[in-house]
Amino acid sequence: MQLHLSTWEEVERYLETSKGIIIPIGSTEQHGPNGLIGTDAICPEVIAKAVGDETGALVGPTISIGNAQHHLGFAGSVTVRPTTLIAIIEDYVASLARNGFERFYFLNGHGGNIATIGAAFAEIYADYSLAIPGSNRPQVRCTLKNWWDTPGVQALSKELYGDRDGSHATASEVSVTQFAYPDHIKHKEMKQAGRAPRAFADADDYRKLYPDGRIGSDPTMARPEHGERLVAASAREVAEDYKKFLAQA
Amino acid sequence: MQLHLSTWEEVERYLETSKGIIIPIGSTEQHGPNGLIGTDAICPEVIAKAVGDETGALVGPTISIGNAQHHLGFAGSVTVRPTTLIAIIEDYVASLARNGFERFYFLNGHGGNIATIGAAFAEIYADYSLAIPGSNRPQVRCTLKNWWDTPGVQALSKELYGDRDGSHATASEVSVTQFAYPDHIKHKEMKQAGRAPRAFADADDYRKLYPDGRIGSDPTMARPEHGERLVAASAREVAEDYKKFLAQA
Amino acid sequence: MQLHLSTWEEVERYLETSKGIIIPIGSTEQHGPNGLIGTDAICPEVIAKAVGDETGALVGPTISIGNAQHHLGFAGSVTVRPTTLIAIIEDYVASLARNGFERFYFLNGHGGNIATIGAAFAEIYADYSLAIPGSNRPQVRCTLKNWWDTPGVQALSKELYGDRDGSHATASEVSVTQFAYPDHIKHKEMKQAGRAPRAFADADDYRKLYPDGRIGSDPTMARPEHGERLVAASAREVAEDYKKFLAQA
Amino acid sequence: MQLHLSTWEEVERYLETSKGIIIPIGSTEQHGPNGLIGTDAICPEVIAKAVGDETGALVGPTISIGNAQHHLGFAGSVTVRPTTLIAIIEDYVASLARNGFERFYFLNGHGGNIATIGAAFAEIYADYSLAIPGSNRPQVRCTLKNWWDTPGVQALSKELYGDRDGSHATASEVSVTQFAYPDHIKHKEMKQAGRAPRAFADADDYRKLYPDGRIGSDPTMARPEHGERLVAASAREVAEDYKKFLAQA
Amino acid sequence: MQLHLSTWEEVERYLETSKGIIIPIGSTEQHGPNGLIGTDAICPEVIAKAVGDETGALVGPTISIGNAQHHLGFAGSVTVRPTTLIAIIEDYVASLARNGFERFYFLNGHGGNIATIGAAFAEIYADYSLAIPGSNRPQVRCTLKNWWDTPGVQALSKELYGDRDGSHATASEVSVTQFAYPDHIKHKEMKQAGRAPRAFADADDYRKLYPDGRIGSDPTMARPEHGERLVAASAREVAEDYKKFLAQA
Amino acid sequence: MQLHLSTWEEVERYLETSKGIIIPIGSTEQHGPNGLIGTDAICPEVIAKAVGDETGALVGPTISIGNAQHHLGFAGSVTVRPTTLIAIIEDYVASLARNGFERFYFLNGHGGNIATIGAAFAEIYADYSLAIPGSNRPQVRCTLKNWWDTPGVQALSKELYGDRDGSHATASEVSVTQFAYPDHIKHKEMKQAGRAPRAFADADDYRKLYPDGRIGSDPTMARPEHGERLVAASAREVAEDYKKFLAQA
Repeated sequence: MQLHLSTWEEVERYLETSKGIIIPIGSTEQHGPNGLIGTDAICPEVIAKAVGDETGALVGPTISIGNAQHHLGFAGSVTVRPTTLIAIIEDYVASLARNGFERFYFLNGHGGNIATIGAAFAEIYADYSLAIPGSNRPQVRCTLKNWWDTPGVQALSKELYGDRDGSHATASEVSVTQFAYPDHIKHKEMKQAGRAPRAFADADDYRKLYPDGRIGSDPTMARPEHGERLVAASAREVAEDYKKFLAQA
Repeated sequence: MQLHLSTWEEVERYLETSKGIIIPIGSTEQHGPNGLIGTDAICPEVIAKAVGDETGALVGPTISIGNAQHHLGFAGSVTVRPTTLIAIIEDYVASLARNGFERFYFLNGHGGNIATIGAAFAEIYADYSLAIPGSNRPQVRCTLKNWWDTPGVQALSKELYGDRDGSHATASEVSVTQFAYPDHIKHKEMKQAGRAPRAFADADDYRKLYPDGRIGSDPTMARPEHGERLVAASAREVAEDYKKFLAQA
Repeated sequence: MQLHLSTWEEVERYLETSKGIIIPIGSTEQHGPNGLIGTDAICPEVIAKAVGDETGALVGPTISIGNAQHHLGFAGSVTVRPTTLIAIIEDYVASLARNGFERFYFLNGHGGNIATIGAAFAEIYADYSLAIPGSNRPQVRCTLKNWWDTPGVQALSKELYGDRDGSHATASEVSVTQFAYPDHIKHKEMKQAGRAPRAFADADDYRKLYPDGRIGSDPTMARPEHGERLVAASAREVAEDYKKFLAQA
Repeated sequence: MQLHLSTWEEVERYLETSKGIIIPIGSTEQHGPNGLIGTDAICPEVIAKAVGDETGALVGPTISIGNAQHHLGFAGSVTVRPTTLIAIIEDYVASLARNGFERFYFLNGHGGNIATIGAAFAEIYADYSLAIPGSNRPQVRCTLKNWWDTPGVQALSKELYGDRDGSHATASEVSVTQFAYPDHIKHKEMKQAGRAPRAFADADDYRKLYPDGRIGSDPTMARPEHGERLVAASAREVAEDYKKFLAQA
Repeated sequence: MQLHLSTWEEVERYLETSKGIIIPIGSTEQHGPNGLIGTDAICPEVIAKAVGDETGALVGPTISIGNAQHHLGFAGSVTVRPTTLIAIIEDYVASLARNGFERFYFLNGHGGNIATIGAAFAEIYADYSLAIPGSNRPQVRCTLKNWWDTPGVQALSKELYGDRDGSHATASEVSVTQFAYPDHIKHKEMKQAGRAPRAFADADDYRKLYPDGRIGSDPTMARPEHGERLVAASAREVAEDYKKFLAQA
Repeated sequence: MQLHLSTWEEVERYLETSKGIIIPIGSTEQHGPNGLIGTDAICPEVIAKAVGDETGALVGPTISIGNAQHHLGFAGSVTVRPTTLIAIIEDYVASLARNGFERFYFLNGHGGNIATIGAAFAEIYADYSLAIPGSNRPQVRCTLKNWWDTPGVQALSKELYGDRDGSHATASEVSVTQFAYPDHIKHKEMKQAGRAPRAFADADDYRKLYPDGRIGSDPTMARPEHGERLVAASAREVAEDYKKFLAQA
């Protein structure tokens, strides 16, 4: 069940049986010569939809712009500052909490968001923690899950790409977008990208280390049919994880 | 050309011939008993894509959550605060300006966003205006267009719905979403909604004035084939308007 | 009744019969070769005083600096950023709401403030809308009225200046300031200003389009006696509008 | 020379001979049973005008709402938060610095503003101090002067009121407002107010300590002719101080 | 009793008999050729500890970075912006208020912090003052004491250094750090520093006026045994002052 | 070399040979029945000092209050909000970058800080990444290291405590504080703490899950002599890591 394709009366009925929601969160940033700029938003959106179809969970609109400051050396990348992203997540959660949602499951598509999402959760909780005891506001709980961070997806990545999947503009994520948007598959020759011996800092630094944008990946191996299998694997495990999250005491 | 479905190299080539981008901006809020919560994001997204197809303009990812504080009395509505929305727009524009974009055309789907988008433009310009003269940073220009605010769309609305189109959860916008998502057409009986004799204030006030969420509309008149015509009418006129914006000295 | 010329005990008594207040809001910015920099604050201040005299309404201190970023290319112009103006309006309203005011009528003198004032209202309402239902805080209602935006003022402008009133540094507003400050009438020859074929952006852009600061106006036509009539016309209609605002259910 | 009663061309000419400006800053807050709520804004505004008349200095529009949180227990008081006031001062100074002003002389009417004005100056300077050396932005200098804090005013207060002048809603400041607004003199019997043995905290605390709003004062002694002498004494000394400020190397 | 060396159960027991806490607040900034960069944090930390030992008061962790923007022309100086310092103080107080603390005694070591600390107190109080009456949140009270601003310390300074103590990098404060860190006494020849005839502004301005960082001081006179006496004198008087603060009705 | 115990001239000389600094960052929060509230600040402070002694690295003043919102259910815990902590880190880095520091090594003592520190780094980098290319500001690089996250410390923890070290109020960290403050060793009987089957959210939630504050630990096993070994092991490995960080191209 997708929030943007539902009516408010349908959501009201949903709340009678569940207080949970899945929120895809991604980024809009370069993904190398054959990767879509929307890759990190597309992947969690597609997988969240699959999880929603399987479990009946409500899926909120995707936060499609994340923390991508380090990719700004490449045309078309868009970032929000971490403090902006914190504000977005706070408002999103507060809006839904106002009408009874209590469990917020963020399905993430971008490693660069992880720290800021954690900070946002702490900022939200701090509002509760700093309140004088005795407030009767229902507590919210937030959790973060990276779509690729499940045993099944990891095994499949290994099986399909060995050590050529990489860490940015990966064969896996490019496959997922090829499955999701088969009309937008880009063909481009390239060798497996290298890895810098150190962490990157800002956008100029990133581009110096990774001239075509990729980190360690060979996305020429990507295939739409891989994408289909990756989505299925991730959705299955994320669905289990989401159900456990709702079932927590 | 959609940014999220392009590669950075494609965007780099696009910048050789155009400094402009169209950015759909909407809201995630109740749209009455048969309107989708995502209506205000769906409409500009669909129309912007049509404009992009027609003109070759690049279309950025949709800002799908806007200023919807007044709809929070209805389950599923999501808002960001105006100051959050200002920050989002600032970061979005600054990111693209960094790599050479200069003309930002926001195609808007939600009346409640208009004031805040105007404030955001002024906040962006103020950064330039407060700088000491002599900075060599290229100027950016931003403009706002509401998808429904064209002669053709207005005429079509009149033709199709007479005085029953209304101002929120309108027959027109519901038609556009029915055209865009024919599998999510909701059937629900209802009479034309009334209009309060005064402006609404916060969410409780809005719900008191408009108990099922609609303002003055009869969205049972919506039809997907109307949506198709409305999208075409809007896209045609928006495309002309966008081209004029780019052509400005 | 002017707030700054009253005692707190007088305000306490006022609150026994009215929860409303009129707040003039303007700007401090260039108004062409013969217009005062304070024009946009002077006009609503003078008219609000007249309305207060006529209706007994309390008039708060004028917010005399507004969003004037686009005028910073001319010496003496002062702006606050939109986010600063939002904070000012929020604090102003919250202060008076604390002691029982509920209806806030902003009488505006500057077109460039309209968007940001709207955003500020939404920011204020959002605090209420995001609160968990059941809070017993009395609701506030805010409204915006531009002093020139009444049938009588529009008719008078037409009668006095035909199509030479313009949109910035207008003959009308210069007349109001001549009536208010007869010792500060500036004499300066100039022709009617032109109009650019497009919207302005930041301060450099504005100055390029409008070299002496005016937009489309011929303020050599201004006369103090026009000002007197304009103030009277506006005050009469604003007073009616204010009374309706208070009378709303 | 008053900024709001000048044209931009007049200000441009002024800048050829002076980079300085005087900015009155006050507050809108209760001043006891016979003191005007606008007292703290009126006093520096009147005195700044006198200084301007005497020295030719440009006087900017008054910041009439200050930090008055502790007076919110009395109807009609209005505060901005300290962080809002810092933003106002930053934007005001940056606007004028953009066009060549370099020396900002804040003439203050409210003890409760002093700390926040100091913090605002540090916030402004921090922007310069944190910049990498080599920026060619001209430095600004800001200073604060309380209108009552001159030998002549202190002597006159002693002469006129002995130890009955007090610290809030003082006979001195009420006299100044009676001189400035002779039609708004309030007659009210009361005894000299007491003094609490400790500092006040928030608004409830202040009202508990000072039930009618005054601190240690007997404003029944106020007379408009005292006001005239106080304005003259302050203006003379402030003018000297301002000239020294401009003359600093 | 030092907070950082206590357990939560010890603090819980402490709260049964006292609602007060002492919070040292300083700065990290150049202190001339023989003064430690940590001087302004070390002094209140050492004295607060002595007060805690004497009175049983709880002493919180030192806020060791303050408003030092004007010292950034000298290597090793660190500042937080005033708005950052306000946020730190707000969060610190709110955290402890949450568990029952009500009286916050800030022992300050840096003149440049005074304005911002005052603004922070007003910001904290404003949250209470702007709340609708009837909230049952216990009020907090905050006070500021400069460690050097007691009769005993002033007398001792006079006795030890006559008019050579100065205002920055003073002989007194250097003595206190020599007492606290006898292994870090720096030996350096220099003459008494001069005093500029005007206030400093930003970091470049400060360095131009005070080339080695000192203001009017001769810290070659500093001795650890002076430091011991200064700490004792300050601690004795601060302890009395703190007890009075707690005893306030 | 400790920044707070150095003079600015010493720092200036240091900068001739190194652009790096180590900044301890911790928290002030409950650490169970026998753990000090300052534990998370003490550990990195002590270890950073050892690293500085060994390598000659400059060590900045400890950020001793971190993100501890989840511990506010226990008396004496103090938090700053994540957005406040981001501002602190930004200002700290910008201050030192102003004078030539380029490499910032944060040695962290608190798991709850990790996300926010990562967000702060991204916020800092975003300032660089959003700048128009061609700025000549030297880049900064920041890195985060948790003091316990080294092979040697992990091995020692295993050797000393087996599976009884836990994750909060650990035997390891209590040992380090016992070594650092032998006069403040707390004796308290308790059993090994349990572990909740899910993540905690806000302060009330944390306390419900962990009634005495510990997570999975048996800090009765802590000994000062363990602390000595842990500090040595961590310092050795952190020193290597820091040297690599400086040596990066």
